[in-house]
Amino acid sequence: MLVDMATDFVQDSLALLERTPGALDALLRGLPAAWTSATEGEGTWSPYVVIGHLIHCEKADWMPRVRMIVEHGDAKTFEPLDREAQFREGTERDLDSMLEELRVLRAANLAELRGMGLGEAELEREGSHPAFGKVTLRQLLATWTAHDMAHVVQIARTMAKRYREEVGPWAEYLSVMR
Amino acid sequence: MLVDMATDFVQDSLALLERTPGALDALLRGLPAAWTSATEGEGTWSPYVVIGHLIHCEKADWMPRVRMIVEHGDAKTFEPLDREAQFREGTERDLDSMLEELRVLRAANLAELRGMGLGEAELEREGSHPAFGKVTLRQLLATWTAHDMAHVVQIARTMAKRYREEVGPWAEYLSVMR
Repeated sequence: MLVDMATDFVQDSLALLERTPGALDALLRGLPAAWTSATEGEGTWSPYVVIGHLIHCEKADWMPRVRMIVEHGDAKTFEPLDREAQFREGTERDLDSMLEELRVLRAANLAELRGMGLGEAELEREGSHPAFGKVTLRQLLATWTAHDMAHVVQIARTMAKRYREEVGPWAEYLSVMR
Repeated sequence: MLVDMATDFVQDSLALLERTPGALDALLRGLPAAWTSATEGEGTWSPYVVIGHLIHCEKADWMPRVRMIVEHGDAKTFEPLDREAQFREGTERDLDSMLEELRVLRAANLAELRGMGLGEAELEREGSHPAFGKVTLRQLLATWTAHDMAHVVQIARTMAKRYREEVGPWAEYLSVMR
């Protein structure tokens, strides 16, 4: 079931998008590195790495794609997302400054997005995705929002699992540990 | 692998426990009800219901069990957790006041816990769980912490899924939708 009105959809998406950086800041700022560098095992991302990924997406992915759809429709194809960028872009930065950067980038991006005054016609405008072909601006905005939540899930799940052994028999009640 | 030192374990647990209410507040306060009342389907919990559950646990579960272990060891068995309590305890309250209640309850509970000055000996003290039998205070504290993260996972996953259709082809890249 799609959300009904263009206005509601944009407002709902913005409402969540504007809260994510603050929620991650409240959860992670000042937290011992034992939590923020924890992973789910070889090849998986720590909360620290996830924040680096979100920063990269804020710079290179979401708004460049929004602008491309608005300016060029599907005449230009999106740059593929570099899912490993955060491993090159300063892996020695401290997390607190990264949380601040995420906040600033997100606020600027949402201010620009709000200024576009997206209505039904703009939301249905199509762009060209390198793997999927035609996608709409509405789908892009929904994905940006859901992607935030997907990474909140990942961060909280990764930290829960750090205590997989510590919880003893309670692991049976905690599906997140499986 | 268990976390090494009793002190590190308690400090790490407290560091996360003290951040959860603020993170949930930053994520959910003022958010449209379309998000906070969303569920994953029949019989699943909305973010609103999860906050009610966390409040109930803060009042009836974690600290009463901590106190029982400290005062009675395994001579008394924990009350079973009422997993449906939040459906009776005021389902018409507004979420913002519930987030505030969670913050206040958690702060008071952690102040009490800190005052106990738990060391290695206390952490290994055993209590009696109605289903598992003997559990340690250390396992209880770890479970309290992991339980927070499990419900952050649930809240973020539930909100991501609200856009399962909206994201169109991107659902393929978002494992949280499955």
